[in-house]
Amino acid sequence: MRPEVNFDRIKRELSELREIGLGEDGGIYRQAFSNADMQARAWLKRKVKEAGLISSQDGAANVFARQSAEGDDPVILIGSHLDSVPCGGNLDGALGVLVALECLRRIEEEKIKTKYGVEVVAFSDEEGRFGGPLGSLALSGEITPEYLVGAVDLNGINLRDEMARHGLEISDILQARRNPENIVAFLELHIEQGPVLDREGFNIGVVEGITGLNKWNVRLKGNADHAGTTPMGMRSDAFMGLAEFAGEIPRIIEENGSDTSVATIGRVSLFPGTANTVPAQVEFSLDIRDVEKEILDDLADACRRALSAIVRRRSLMFEFDIISEIPPVDCDKKIVGIIRDEAEIMNIKHRPIHSGAVHDAQIISRIAPVGMIFVPSKDGRSHSPAEWTYWEDIEVGANLFLRTLLKLAEAH
Amino acid sequence: MRPEVNFDRIKRELSELREIGLGEDGGIYRQAFSNADMQARAWLKRKVKEAGLISSQDGAANVFARQSAEGDDPVILIGSHLDSVPCGGNLDGALGVLVALECLRRIEEEKIKTKYGVEVVAFSDEEGRFGGPLGSLALSGEITPEYLVGAVDLNGINLRDEMARHGLEISDILQARRNPENIVAFLELHIEQGPVLDREGFNIGVVEGITGLNKWNVRLKGNADHAGTTPMGMRSDAFMGLAEFAGEIPRIIEENGSDTSVATIGRVSLFPGTANTVPAQVEFSLDIRDVEKEILDDLADACRRALSAIVRRRSLMFEFDIISEIPPVDCDKKIVGIIRDEAEIMNIKHRPIHSGAVHDAQIISRIAPVGMIFVPSKDGRSHSPAEWTYWEDIEVGANLFLRTLLKLAEAH
Repeated sequence: MRPEVNFDRIKRELSELREIGLGEDGGIYRQAFSNADMQARAWLKRKVKEAGLISSQDGAANVFARQSAEGDDPVILIGSHLDSVPCGGNLDGALGVLVALECLRRIEEEKIKTKYGVEVVAFSDEEGRFGGPLGSLALSGEITPEYLVGAVDLNGINLRDEMARHGLEISDILQARRNPENIVAFLELHIEQGPVLDREGFNIGVVEGITGLNKWNVRLKGNADHAGTTPMGMRSDAFMGLAEFAGEIPRIIEENGSDTSVATIGRVSLFPGTANTVPAQVEFSLDIRDVEKEILDDLADACRRALSAIVRRRSLMFEFDIISEIPPVDCDKKIVGIIRDEAEIMNIKHRPIHSGAVHDAQIISRIAPVGMIFVPSKDGRSHSPAEWTYWEDIEVGANLFLRTLLKLAEAH
Repeated sequence: MRPEVNFDRIKRELSELREIGLGEDGGIYRQAFSNADMQARAWLKRKVKEAGLISSQDGAANVFARQSAEGDDPVILIGSHLDSVPCGGNLDGALGVLVALECLRRIEEEKIKTKYGVEVVAFSDEEGRFGGPLGSLALSGEITPEYLVGAVDLNGINLRDEMARHGLEISDILQARRNPENIVAFLELHIEQGPVLDREGFNIGVVEGITGLNKWNVRLKGNADHAGTTPMGMRSDAFMGLAEFAGEIPRIIEENGSDTSVATIGRVSLFPGTANTVPAQVEFSLDIRDVEKEILDDLADACRRALSAIVRRRSLMFEFDIISEIPPVDCDKKIVGIIRDEAEIMNIKHRPIHSGAVHDAQIISRIAPVGMIFVPSKDGRSHSPAEWTYWEDIEVGANLFLRTLLKLAEAH
């Protein structure tokens, strides 16, 4: 018994879903709780019904599909998310939901008997318009009333109003928690969103873990001197302090890091920020990631030491706020083994990989064993209309996903 | 005959003038052609009249004071400017105008006979709200009709409207040109606006020249990759290119520059500028100064070469616009000699210095020999309410200014 996905159906549905929130620039604008995001939910529910399956929606607006009405039976949860960043691609999240739906549909069509039920999920706000990955946090029971009060997007729109606009009640999010005992495992297919598989010529990445993240907001403070009248030796130039620190990042990673270590300065603001003034202050983001908690801690320590030494030497002051501290997560070894074994049987060119991006699977790992399958991202592009994966890779990934699922659900 | 300034009068007038445009934060808000700037002009004309002198105003709203009605006799021009940056200090410009007025008043009071007439000037818009130092450019005949059409401030207010608001006609600026033959010399007293005299314990700086300036707007372009999923070796990080270049500035100055060389990166913008994206583009200002034209050219070349090498190595692209290219200016050797000799006679602790900032004297040097006297700026602060010079230094500077003026005017 080796059922395969109906790949034409996946292609057709990807193209239908792409129309929802498609901007004139070719980007997808399906930000969480936007009209387009709600339309995508409605579209998914229609597809579920057309397949003879049963859809439901919880208090966090996570959408589910099952073969029979909701019960308390243990299930294999599969899926991803439908929301996008502004001007995103059409595969990020959506592909994982459609492949999961197709797999459940094939189980239904082939009348495959499984020990565990299979449940498809499309999580709310994975991209974090209102903060964290809302839907998976809610399902894991990690959302608090305080969290909801502070849930505001970058434009100052709060989650309460945005949900109310669609007849949804924010406090219902607190009721979305699921009993961990009833989730046997969570399996997610996703595009890599990085260049590794594409550049190295692999069709599949077997995700072994998801990197941890330390995100800081750092300020260096010096003096705002006149750029013409202040000799180089009499300056306390905050930007030159940052430049020196940035120059030390390769050394810090070589000395303390691993192959999976990355560190990024993505946001920089100078004050006063005029051409003829020595910068008195620089504020910047520092994003450090690694798959090992200890290495991540070492990297953070090394950055702190480097910054301290630089500010001392340059007569600056230094302060920082920790914005995020998300520990790395290991995928479940048994699930990783199944994915790898099935990939071997299918003769797929695969390699182990770590996810550098946050995913719903990272959150769900707190309550259940998780596994992830990556398909390549052309040139590593994502969060952009340039996001692309070859059809062959998607098809291979979808069939690998189905076979892994059947193993996990103990089909017989 | 050794007349001295009436220093109490200078102190009193500084304190009166400080009230005009004084903000609640203690800063001076006397931007060119603001109401406060026009009030300062009116106040100055009243002071001129009270001293029994004759005031006039040219088409650029430069205000003048003389002992007798305007004629074509050659004069020693002395003065500075009354306008300020937003939230500026009360000495920048104003001190030079008040010291000049006091000197002319003393000549009048003491009935000192001079070979050349003495004329006080308060130049318009030295701080360049509408572009260059408007008043001195107009007097030097360097303003064109095209320049006036493009004269708009950072808030989009154009000079035409701002002048019209005060009953002034913009095209009259073109008539402010003075015959260079009638300007024997220009002498300006100014605060240093830098830390050198204060930190080294000098009371007076004898300005030997004004540094030239090359100002560029530079863009480095790479790729906007995901900060989590893109390994360090697969990035084209535009910000890391800038950081490397900034780190090379000390070497570039050591290899190509002089003691007076400075280079500043004061403005930096990253795109997209979010914490979890590798910067695809960085745009920054580069401000390079030196007192020697050739050294300035060498520094600019070295910066260009360093940037080219960095972008090649890092797979970035590089483009830049030249915003300003102002050649260095030497003060007149004879005037510098007089200032130094008089400082020696007065037993003043003085040192030669170069101005790193732009001054009206730099512009006037194109049509007449110029000299400048600097008094110390406490901690190098200027363009700020923290701007401060000790009264003793101001008094010493004013008397040195008067003695230099009498020499230049060939008092007998």
